[in-house]
Amino acid sequence: MKKYLITGYAGFVGRHFVEYLDKNETDAVIKGLDIQKPDFSRDSYNNIHMDFEKIDLLDRDRVENIIFSFQPDYILHLASYSSVAFSWKEPIFSFQNNMNIYLNLLESIRKLNLPVRILSIGSSEGYGNVNEDLLPLTEAHIQKPVSPYAVARVSQEMISKVYVNGYGLDIVMTRSFHHIGPFQKDIFVIPSFARQLVEMKTNGNTSGELITGDTSFVRDFTDVRDVVGAYDLLLKKGKTGEIYNVCSGRGTSLSNVISNMTKILDLHIHTRVNEKLLRPSDNRIVIGSNEKIKRDIGWHNHISLEQSLADIIDYWRQNGSKCGDNQNGHA
Amino acid sequence: MKKYLITGYAGFVGRHFVEYLDKNETDAVIKGLDIQKPDFSRDSYNNIHMDFEKIDLLDRDRVENIIFSFQPDYILHLASYSSVAFSWKEPIFSFQNNMNIYLNLLESIRKLNLPVRILSIGSSEGYGNVNEDLLPLTEAHIQKPVSPYAVARVSQEMISKVYVNGYGLDIVMTRSFHHIGPFQKDIFVIPSFARQLVEMKTNGNTSGELITGDTSFVRDFTDVRDVVGAYDLLLKKGKTGEIYNVCSGRGTSLSNVISNMTKILDLHIHTRVNEKLLRPSDNRIVIGSNEKIKRDIGWHNHISLEQSLADIIDYWRQNGSKCGDNQNGHA
Repeated sequence: MKKYLITGYAGFVGRHFVEYLDKNETDAVIKGLDIQKPDFSRDSYNNIHMDFEKIDLLDRDRVENIIFSFQPDYILHLASYSSVAFSWKEPIFSFQNNMNIYLNLLESIRKLNLPVRILSIGSSEGYGNVNEDLLPLTEAHIQKPVSPYAVARVSQEMISKVYVNGYGLDIVMTRSFHHIGPFQKDIFVIPSFARQLVEMKTNGNTSGELITGDTSFVRDFTDVRDVVGAYDLLLKKGKTGEIYNVCSGRGTSLSNVISNMTKILDLHIHTRVNEKLLRPSDNRIVIGSNEKIKRDIGWHNHISLEQSLADIIDYWRQNGSKCGDNQNGHA
Repeated sequence: MKKYLITGYAGFVGRHFVEYLDKNETDAVIKGLDIQKPDFSRDSYNNIHMDFEKIDLLDRDRVENIIFSFQPDYILHLASYSSVAFSWKEPIFSFQNNMNIYLNLLESIRKLNLPVRILSIGSSEGYGNVNEDLLPLTEAHIQKPVSPYAVARVSQEMISKVYVNGYGLDIVMTRSFHHIGPFQKDIFVIPSFARQLVEMKTNGNTSGELITGDTSFVRDFTDVRDVVGAYDLLLKKGKTGEIYNVCSGRGTSLSNVISNMTKILDLHIHTRVNEKLLRPSDNRIVIGSNEKIKRDIGWHNHISLEQSLADIIDYWRQNGSKCGDNQNGHA
């Protein structure tokens, strides 16, 4: 029996991680922490034992008490305000709810001196604006964060290394690229497109207009169900103090994603750019290398982009009125 | 008339900066902020107008109000818990009182939309453990912080760049190497040695034992009076968004510093290493390049190490019973 503490439990990735454990572990015990209640319940699962506690991770005393009582084997630290756009609006709040909550968590574990393995989720946003000649990005690429969110993520990684090398904590780090899938909230770009396209179709239209930002942007999309598999494998087999890109190794433009979805829905769409959705300091092309995670722990992504998009469309067909989740994805 | 807002005003560097302005400016207006009251008073100065306000910089509302009322031309952000050793003991407190206080300051200025120039003081500690072949360190050297304090300093620099490039703030950054001089508190290594050696001499001894850490460590020491000159020049002539090493470009071992001081005092000393004072993750040799600051703004350091040490000895001769200052220096 292994005990997992999951922060950011109520989010998009947390939900998929729980589903993954339920399918792949016979006796995992999970304690979920989040500032908001999850909208999925323990009744859906067969093999795992789940418990949830509502907490603001800035409350360090409570964090420490919870960790002490639960005595986890693994901590999957998903909690994050991961919207880049939000971080530009509220940089202090974003920083505190990325970096400071994480530092609280590490400090609790240091003080309790527990032999727990921590997986620190970071972001490809830390790489910043990269020279296209250097793609795909390996972990050796120097990080130059260009948004408040990205600064917090790089800070998180730097403090992780200090806690590994200076205090002897057992931390593995990721730089996770964009992940997509069912249940992702539509404040993020792919689910937002999916919801709008499904709405057009449901309303009986065969054609329509989609308002977008710059759809020539190329991103490295991985299905969240592959991502959570990587996280569980990293908790079990990742090397202490090491950083792993979690990505597909393949770039896809947003326009390509849109045309894939319109094909599935049999819609004819023209896109119109809203200047307000253009973000000047965004990278144009981001593609990661997943050689290290493949080599070191034998992870592979299995779900094709086409399959992901089909499942996302299905999800919005069934859940068009819900508004999804704003944490733990990447806009 | 130029208005200077100085955070960390009561510290070692703040005091010297005020003296510098008093000597070099006829009509500077200064507002000092610090969490503790300065132990120097406005009566000592002839040319400048000074005012002090006691404040915890984590109190963002008060920070914003003060900045709005004062409408500074320049902000010299000296405030920092700059002890590396302390940051290992209290990483959260250290991080908050380096990074979070700075983010509060930047966010206040962004919200007020003031045309103020900010000098963000950073640290050579950000460079981490460096390959000796790469000395002296230029600003192009990649930072790999190895202590909680250093992580906070690198985070401060990263967020500065985001506020320059993303929000258009006018920020110049330093990576300041070790600075020494009168009034530095004896929790730092050079004033600690000076105080102990002066005590031996005052007690009538001609020889004695000094307990040290590893005295083979080489550091780049600059007199604080040269450092504050650099800071004023950077406020006036530094390029927005640029980072400048502030250093002498010369390395000196701690054992060399000790023998210099014993020569001045005519003492015969043997040193004994206290294992507890050895810090395993410390750099052995740190020397910076000051080519950029010389080239870009015409700064030069004028005060020799021998002169600095003589002045420090003099200071401790006159102030042996006082215990100095624990901020804004580098241990």
